[in-house]
Amino acid sequence: MSDILHRIATRTTSADGVYEALTTIDGLAGWWTKDTTGKTGIGDVIEFRFPPGGFSLKVLELVPGELVRWEVVEGPEEWVGTTVNWKLEQSGDYTVVLFEHLGWKEPVEFMYHCSTKWASYLLSLKSLVETGTGAPSPHDVMISDWH
Amino acid sequence: MSDILHRIATRTTSADGVYEALTTIDGLAGWWTKDTTGKTGIGDVIEFRFPPGGFSLKVLELVPGELVRWEVVEGPEEWVGTTVNWKLEQSGDYTVVLFEHLGWKEPVEFMYHCSTKWASYLLSLKSLVETGTGAPSPHDVMISDWH
Repeated sequence: MSDILHRIATRTTSADGVYEALTTIDGLAGWWTKDTTGKTGIGDVIEFRFPPGGFSLKVLELVPGELVRWEVVEGPEEWVGTTVNWKLEQSGDYTVVLFEHLGWKEPVEFMYHCSTKWASYLLSLKSLVETGTGAPSPHDVMISDWH
Repeated sequence: MSDILHRIATRTTSADGVYEALTTIDGLAGWWTKDTTGKTGIGDVIEFRFPPGGFSLKVLELVPGELVRWEVVEGPEEWVGTTVNWKLEQSGDYTVVLFEHLGWKEPVEFMYHCSTKWASYLLSLKSLVETGTGAPSPHDVMISDWH
């Protein structure tokens, strides 16, 4: 099993802004992909779509201001069954975000790509929360020939 | 053991530019940290310094246009003994860069941070090779309270 791990922090005095950006359709559409639909409660499925395809994620756990957990229920074969965890912690003037995409069966080249791409989306999330403007797909940063 | 994996591609018709940016002091100073000193041949040690500290890396292997391998010989405890691999492959109009920072003993929070920070430096490398201008320390992208 291989994992993708990241850490960012937003300059915000409470974790509410990050939590909202992870748990509402408008928030998610503001940093990951504009084409986000579905419902965001526990047990609901959120559909994230991109020009080349997309992912559907089931919400497993929600702890306001602290934790968001998703399971991938549809998408590329390598993604299905993996889980995504967001752990939030307020530290002074910063909201620290620990990100985990766990359970990749093999460290395939697509995982290398997703690791870098997640980092760029995390910086989009940081920008959204700090400035009101993120860089969601299709306005995301192009990192390679795979977009 | 835990690993950091990333993939980017530069829009370049040969891998020479990326290879040069990884194997010369001027190249390395153009995307990672301006405070880069030392020698860059096999067996040499390159010193990378940042405002809060730095790393010294020994060059293990060099295959022009294909591979660069380093071992961390000095720096934060979690880094010492880990290895960094750069695998380059030309694919049409793109040079694909597979990056591996292998052998972290534990997936500590500092590793989460370094994973995201590496992604941002890889985008700095891409920018340097494509446009001539990167974002090396101290002009690097601030991703968190840990810089």
